[in-house]
Amino acid sequence: MTQKVTIALDAMGGDLGPEAVIPAVLATLEKDDSVNFLVVGSPNTLDGVRAKAGDRYGSRLIFASAAEIVGMDEHPADALRHKKHSSMRIAIEAVKSGEADACVSSGNTGALMAISHYVLKMLPGVDRPAIIGAVPSLSGYTFMLDLGANVGCNARHLFQFALMGSVVAEDFLDIERARIGLLNIGQEDIKGNEVVREAGEQLNQSDLNYVGFVEGDAVFSGEVDVIVSDGFVGNVALKTMEGVAGLITVIMREEFSRNPIRQLQSLSAYSALNAIRNRLDTRRYNGASLLGLNGVVIKSHGGADKFAFECAIQTAIVEARKGVPVQIGRLIKTQGAQCTHM
Amino acid sequence: MTQKVTIALDAMGGDLGPEAVIPAVLATLEKDDSVNFLVVGSPNTLDGVRAKAGDRYGSRLIFASAAEIVGMDEHPADALRHKKHSSMRIAIEAVKSGEADACVSSGNTGALMAISHYVLKMLPGVDRPAIIGAVPSLSGYTFMLDLGANVGCNARHLFQFALMGSVVAEDFLDIERARIGLLNIGQEDIKGNEVVREAGEQLNQSDLNYVGFVEGDAVFSGEVDVIVSDGFVGNVALKTMEGVAGLITVIMREEFSRNPIRQLQSLSAYSALNAIRNRLDTRRYNGASLLGLNGVVIKSHGGADKFAFECAIQTAIVEARKGVPVQIGRLIKTQGAQCTHM
Repeated sequence: MTQKVTIALDAMGGDLGPEAVIPAVLATLEKDDSVNFLVVGSPNTLDGVRAKAGDRYGSRLIFASAAEIVGMDEHPADALRHKKHSSMRIAIEAVKSGEADACVSSGNTGALMAISHYVLKMLPGVDRPAIIGAVPSLSGYTFMLDLGANVGCNARHLFQFALMGSVVAEDFLDIERARIGLLNIGQEDIKGNEVVREAGEQLNQSDLNYVGFVEGDAVFSGEVDVIVSDGFVGNVALKTMEGVAGLITVIMREEFSRNPIRQLQSLSAYSALNAIRNRLDTRRYNGASLLGLNGVVIKSHGGADKFAFECAIQTAIVEARKGVPVQIGRLIKTQGAQCTHM
Repeated sequence: MTQKVTIALDAMGGDLGPEAVIPAVLATLEKDDSVNFLVVGSPNTLDGVRAKAGDRYGSRLIFASAAEIVGMDEHPADALRHKKHSSMRIAIEAVKSGEADACVSSGNTGALMAISHYVLKMLPGVDRPAIIGAVPSLSGYTFMLDLGANVGCNARHLFQFALMGSVVAEDFLDIERARIGLLNIGQEDIKGNEVVREAGEQLNQSDLNYVGFVEGDAVFSGEVDVIVSDGFVGNVALKTMEGVAGLITVIMREEFSRNPIRQLQSLSAYSALNAIRNRLDTRRYNGASLLGLNGVVIKSHGGADKFAFECAIQTAIVEARKGVPVQIGRLIKTQGAQCTHM
């Protein structure tokens, strides 16, 4: 029997807010009867959902009313201090209390980090939370972290990211001994800065399946399952990817609508173009995890629509079922001790 | 009358060596009679070219024989110390002596940097050389630097990169007051690390057309003409771009050859697909410049073929004609003084 899980949702986060979250909830409830939801939103929003869903889902769909909303541009420290009744905070607190097994929000990333950190606390032995996400590769997916939680990192942080990333990659890809690469500007041992080189040495001495330094194109080549970097570099790489994918999409659209002949070509090539569009659809990879915390917190893209939010919910379900935080806690106890600087 | 320029070429660098360089030289000689070449290569290579070209180009095509070749994986310090008769070194020395107005090599990047630095020296007021390259954007091109010359940078270095980048962008895009962005993980002033924030403050106080922080996707949006980062971040961004472009190319090829129907679709959509392929052809952007030196040095991609090498030659021609090093030297004298930390 599939393990039942309850996911808490911040219905007010993201550009679309409840317009994306509620349809995603209802779709998931229909598809998967092992998933329950706790939807946190403004009283008006919840009234709307109740009117729509009626009694159809019984205790599988419960609600919590939130008096406040964290703004997308709000300073994280302000959100932490002054928005104690926000939908984001209440969703995270449901994970803390055990009422939910995971929470998902499309809201302000910095605030989600700050509040999660404060409410859930770090796992013992983990210094810093990190954001991990999946990107498409030639062979399937590659997991990248940190995507922006930490601007400056030392070798010990990178080591912990590698450890946490391997847990996530193994759980999602259903593999053993995920291959780990450290993002660098060359593959030779002499390349890069001191932090990266020291992290490489520590990983070499560990039981983790560390492959060595990799360059930016390894994200897509499929040569590793996990790519580790500090949050500055990881965030730039992620945004660059989004940018180039967007540019190529625009170029394709421009060329296939340049004149009536090209428009006909686009019609006749519809099935191939559609398949390409689907494979490049970034919504499929939506749902980044905040790792290192005592609980599962999933950050959905701020611009997520219904489909993208459903994908983020799936990420939350997998992490909740696999017990990612417990696994990380266990691994850091055994592996962390191997690292001389830990 | 177009100003005559002489370009020195390291014929032995890159994966293809003379197979790419020589056809590119002959093609350029045919197309543009204001360009002369000094080809530096092994005696065998030069004999081959002489046999092929005969007397056709007279003094427009001259040769220098090199006894050594810098290996693609050779340590830069070793190449600098022990390869004094390499094709790379002789091409750079031709720029130093004034025999050539610029040089181009597809060889070992680190060695090219080290030897250029040693032979040509830095421009007064510039602390570090930087590598700049053009990438396609929605509106044309964006120039990015540093692409990997400097692993760690302080604010003063980033300021100088911005200054040098604006000269190149203005020369190539034929614009005034190139818009400069500092690569960061958010656009707000509080985001990023101290180095980036301090560089931002210095740029704000300068006469340069500094726009502010930009994220990774700005490379393609066309919102700025120059994107400044340290070499670690810039190199990762560049390689990530190459990776995602490669992935998308593979996906397109896979989908358009999946079955006979799709293959027919690909034939019928040939003109659009070809236009897309051309616009994404990275060879068109080949030719990165080593900035900050007393002379024009262009790094061509190691895998450059004839067409790509021709593009790198064009970059060298523009920089030689515009006198990029002189322009940078002039600007750093006036603007550099404005920067409080310089």
